[in-house]
Amino acid sequence: MKEYKVGLLGCGIVGTGVVRLLQENSSILEKKLGAKLTLKRIAVRDLEKDRGLVLAPGVLTGDFRQILADPDISIIIELMGGYSPAREYLLEAIGNGKHVITANKALLALHGQELYDAAARNRVEIRYEAAVAGGIPVLSAIKGNMAANRFGSVLGILNGTCNYILTRMTEEGAGFAAVLKNAQELGYAEADPTFDIEGTDTAHKLSILISLCFGTWVSFGDIHVEGISSVSDLDIDFAGRLGYRIKLLAIGKRYEDRIEARVHPAMVPACDPLAGISGVYNAVRLTGNYVGTVMFYGRGAGMEPTASAVVGDLMAIARNMLVGAGRRTAPLGFLDKNIGFVPIQPMGETVCKYYLRFSVLDRPGILAKIAGALGENGISIKSAIQTAKSGGGFVPLVIVTHEAKEIDVNKALDRIGAIGITSENPALIRIEDDL
Amino acid sequence: MKEYKVGLLGCGIVGTGVVRLLQENSSILEKKLGAKLTLKRIAVRDLEKDRGLVLAPGVLTGDFRQILADPDISIIIELMGGYSPAREYLLEAIGNGKHVITANKALLALHGQELYDAAARNRVEIRYEAAVAGGIPVLSAIKGNMAANRFGSVLGILNGTCNYILTRMTEEGAGFAAVLKNAQELGYAEADPTFDIEGTDTAHKLSILISLCFGTWVSFGDIHVEGISSVSDLDIDFAGRLGYRIKLLAIGKRYEDRIEARVHPAMVPACDPLAGISGVYNAVRLTGNYVGTVMFYGRGAGMEPTASAVVGDLMAIARNMLVGAGRRTAPLGFLDKNIGFVPIQPMGETVCKYYLRFSVLDRPGILAKIAGALGENGISIKSAIQTAKSGGGFVPLVIVTHEAKEIDVNKALDRIGAIGITSENPALIRIEDDL
Repeated sequence: MKEYKVGLLGCGIVGTGVVRLLQENSSILEKKLGAKLTLKRIAVRDLEKDRGLVLAPGVLTGDFRQILADPDISIIIELMGGYSPAREYLLEAIGNGKHVITANKALLALHGQELYDAAARNRVEIRYEAAVAGGIPVLSAIKGNMAANRFGSVLGILNGTCNYILTRMTEEGAGFAAVLKNAQELGYAEADPTFDIEGTDTAHKLSILISLCFGTWVSFGDIHVEGISSVSDLDIDFAGRLGYRIKLLAIGKRYEDRIEARVHPAMVPACDPLAGISGVYNAVRLTGNYVGTVMFYGRGAGMEPTASAVVGDLMAIARNMLVGAGRRTAPLGFLDKNIGFVPIQPMGETVCKYYLRFSVLDRPGILAKIAGALGENGISIKSAIQTAKSGGGFVPLVIVTHEAKEIDVNKALDRIGAIGITSENPALIRIEDDL
Repeated sequence: MKEYKVGLLGCGIVGTGVVRLLQENSSILEKKLGAKLTLKRIAVRDLEKDRGLVLAPGVLTGDFRQILADPDISIIIELMGGYSPAREYLLEAIGNGKHVITANKALLALHGQELYDAAARNRVEIRYEAAVAGGIPVLSAIKGNMAANRFGSVLGILNGTCNYILTRMTEEGAGFAAVLKNAQELGYAEADPTFDIEGTDTAHKLSILISLCFGTWVSFGDIHVEGISSVSDLDIDFAGRLGYRIKLLAIGKRYEDRIEARVHPAMVPACDPLAGISGVYNAVRLTGNYVGTVMFYGRGAGMEPTASAVVGDLMAIARNMLVGAGRRTAPLGFLDKNIGFVPIQPMGETVCKYYLRFSVLDRPGILAKIAGALGENGISIKSAIQTAKSGGGFVPLVIVTHEAKEIDVNKALDRIGAIGITSENPALIRIEDDL
């Protein structure tokens, strides 16, 4: 039986899952491949850490370059995370003619083009299914069986931490800070959760999905990114009353001369399947001009699902090697030379419905003033909820608009702010009910 | 640019979709493949029929064997349906060293082994993504990126006609016969809907999914198959009251020494995402020992989604040919020699919860008699709904059991039938709330 030697860089949670999968499912893998995948070396920073793994002596090493240079190793898996030295190691592995697998979405979102170019020059595969939506095989599907489509949109719930927090806020009526603290205690959120809760991680994944679906490079800094830290329990409550749920959505749409790429909390209809994606689950919904709408959902993170995606990539590469083929599919599905650059539409040009919550003085005539400012900017109101309170002070006023352009909404909000009837900046949440 | 010539057998709805896709999306395909896919010949029975297609002269032919023997054609797509001559044509194409693609689930469910063996001997690929769940790329995912898993279960809503009928019965409270008639008028059900509504089509697809997930041949005749023609609007109504929806489910489960393979109407919790799959949509849910639970949903039939799956297969084969590889992946993912045979567990051994609806005499003591017969057979009752009616006669009595073995339920029902307090055979619907 043929044997392929694999090197692993980094052995944290996902790396540990990969090692376990290769051990536990080895007979399944061999029955499918007719070849043996052997993890020859694992490079880690801390050789002493107990990972709960049974490894042959000599497998664990502190010397990353030993793996990168080993002529016996044909496939390198990078699971270190971070930009450096992951980037340098991957480039070195590719330069040495090794196929590479990575789960590093941040690196791909910012340095993907450099890595893909290097892989093309060296005729090796770079695969990264685990970088988006954990175990859900959505990238393979876009590059694989759905490749015959011209994709019009891609939409996702891509960050388990945010979805877990929003789900608990919705189910328990609890506030963001309290749920985040508890999520950190339970291990569902990092000690420093900024990347997750501020939407950066979701934007990294959206950038990858957009490149794959639309065959275009993405200028990452042009993606509009808002996280969930400003979502209040009041908004969650009003969303429910209006028949919506709040989700952190990644949205990509393709037009002739531009794309939309945005990450922000959005209200989706409670009856939409996306609203039902709860806890740490992820979902991706695509539309192609032939396949129509397809949705995938599953566990978006965690040791086992992510390991499933990594070893799936490993098997794909091994299948190529078994038939003597080097690089079979370009990293983005499109041949490298056919990947264009299409600008991202400025956020002000976005057209959707808006949920606006003002904190207003509890006195007559306020709604008229706000409605007036919206009307002057061409924004029509679909519904309004005004809460009266005995004793004056400030009360919430919620307005749901018909479709409007974001730049006009911003102008109206500036105007309303200047009137001096509101106590704080209004909450703005986009409504996506035409998904 | 390399060019691969393709032959198409049959040009009904799906075939027409394939032709259109190849024409409309040709630039996308070329940007991804760097090769040209040319439909050289299409064999049809009726040369005169207007398919609304613009074809070069000479493409359409009535001579199927001309395509099978054409040395210029390297890939054959079979979209004729039926067992014969589709089977003979596919075997001939394979024998001539051509890669083949088919959407013929009935043929694969009954003659798959013969076709896969022939493809193995001739070192060609046989691909059939369109045979199950239309455009949803679930077969590719099982063979592809999820291949590292040991699958424990596969579950699906696989027939659009049945799901459309059940959805309308649920939403409109209408009876089966009326909805079927209307569905036929609207083109959502065939003139002879037997294959669809009696569950046969679903069982064909389940058989394919089981072989792929578990690496085992399926003795098709051993699959328990019940359709939806006996589902009454009364049951739909009670399901709603109990917090369930009725769906025609395909269920496959893997145990050490046997598999479960059954197709029947089932009650699923209203909050389960499967309950929300409505109309002609299909869904497949899988559990793997690493990926966990993954669900896919999308359009399960129709010209465009099915064409997407067929051309996706075509691109996969073209990618192989471009790198000089013939057969890259065995038809079932597992190497042919590693496909075992595991018997299907007899239906009597099934353990689940049961919904039982009796039509009983409206008088005191009836529930006690029925509960007694159930208890004697070791079946405990979770809940009962008894409807009283003024004036005697027969009324519905609904019982929901805790987990029980089907053989015991059948014994109890025989016993109850013999008491002489029921007016007709009871309705039995399995409850699948532990999916």
